[in-house]
Amino acid sequence: MADHTVTAYDEELQTLARYISEMGGMSESMIGEALQSLLQADTVRAKKVIADDKDLDKLQRQVEEDAILTIAKRQPMASDLREIIAALRVSNDLERCGDLAKNIAKRAIAIESLVLPSKLVHGIEHMAELAQSQLTKVLNAFVSGDVEQAELVWKNDNEIDAIYTSLFRELLTYMMEDPRNISYCTHLLFCAKNIERIGDHATNIAETVIYKVTGVQLEDERPKGDNSAIQVPYNPAT
Amino acid sequence: MADHTVTAYDEELQTLARYISEMGGMSESMIGEALQSLLQADTVRAKKVIADDKDLDKLQRQVEEDAILTIAKRQPMASDLREIIAALRVSNDLERCGDLAKNIAKRAIAIESLVLPSKLVHGIEHMAELAQSQLTKVLNAFVSGDVEQAELVWKNDNEIDAIYTSLFRELLTYMMEDPRNISYCTHLLFCAKNIERIGDHATNIAETVIYKVTGVQLEDERPKGDNSAIQVPYNPAT
Repeated sequence: MADHTVTAYDEELQTLARYISEMGGMSESMIGEALQSLLQADTVRAKKVIADDKDLDKLQRQVEEDAILTIAKRQPMASDLREIIAALRVSNDLERCGDLAKNIAKRAIAIESLVLPSKLVHGIEHMAELAQSQLTKVLNAFVSGDVEQAELVWKNDNEIDAIYTSLFRELLTYMMEDPRNISYCTHLLFCAKNIERIGDHATNIAETVIYKVTGVQLEDERPKGDNSAIQVPYNPAT
Repeated sequence: MADHTVTAYDEELQTLARYISEMGGMSESMIGEALQSLLQADTVRAKKVIADDKDLDKLQRQVEEDAILTIAKRQPMASDLREIIAALRVSNDLERCGDLAKNIAKRAIAIESLVLPSKLVHGIEHMAELAQSQLTKVLNAFVSGDVEQAELVWKNDNEIDAIYTSLFRELLTYMMEDPRNISYCTHLLFCAKNIERIGDHATNIAETVIYKVTGVQLEDERPKGDNSAIQVPYNPAT
């Protein structure tokens, strides 16, 4: 028979891992639902996302509490300690993904009933699909401890940033074409920014996976970022 | 003579507290400098803020490492444990304030050399002063364990949100008046949003102060938030 203490400890680690999986599933679903509520002008769906965010916040507090209790009780060393720290960090990132989904849902309610230009819809959908796929991949890498996969996610964030930058320009163009577009395009700008930030959280999680498995803390700047802050001229010629 | 172990432990707690103070000072200064770089079109200042953010990130990792090492070594109970958890949480919020300041600085570089309408400047200045004052007050409350002060900060976040909402409308108006305003106003929109989020982090810290001192975890929704997502019509009459 296994040692009783070790078994209880293993169970604690498994519970933490289960919470992270649950948080991952919830935030993935919230992001998908927020996007659908935005693109299909579905207020009911949007309200559900806003409500769900509270449960995600609670789970994050639970992870924090359990993780710290485990550290205090078990005094884990090296790889076990890294596993617990990783859970803490990932729960933070997922909680923030939930906040971003909630903000998209709020904006979906604000621009409700408006038929969005299909070019913008495609841009946002494409960006969101990439961000969701990055998040799914990195959460799988977290579970399996797959460093290569995590590194791939880390490197691929550039793609999301590139789409964001082009979407940003596109939205500005729509705004300049017709003042009636300004208000809803502003909401879409923030939505796009939120998706870009979800991508950043996926790269954060990728760094955490690498740290958890190898103990190495990435020091480099992320291959980010939102280039709209430096690339877009303040006063375009058109 | 005091017990050696206890003294070493006390020193660890003091070191953590010192790190938090240092992080607080840094993020306050970064926010101030980012604002000045934006309002005075000072690119050199903006670049300094962007560079400083790396130091703040490092400090946050240091707090995390030290806090967790202390929990593992000392197995603190009750109020000591809360103090360490509080340090962890506050360092997270301050690191994010630094990120927001960095983003403002990046946008300052993007809209460089543009003379901003004084009405917008006043609005942003006013909002930033409030957010900075909230942050300073709550960091003082953190050091002194002043729950009343923390509650005051928590309640006053409404003010920042109100200014944000009115500034948001104002910016939309500028954009609608003249398409040449759209690009820089978009950057200012994001800057204003960043300041609003700094205010949110101040309320997070307020919640942490209350938790640290009383052990009570606030369950209510924050008195937030960014109402622009729900209040601004997508297609205003004007």
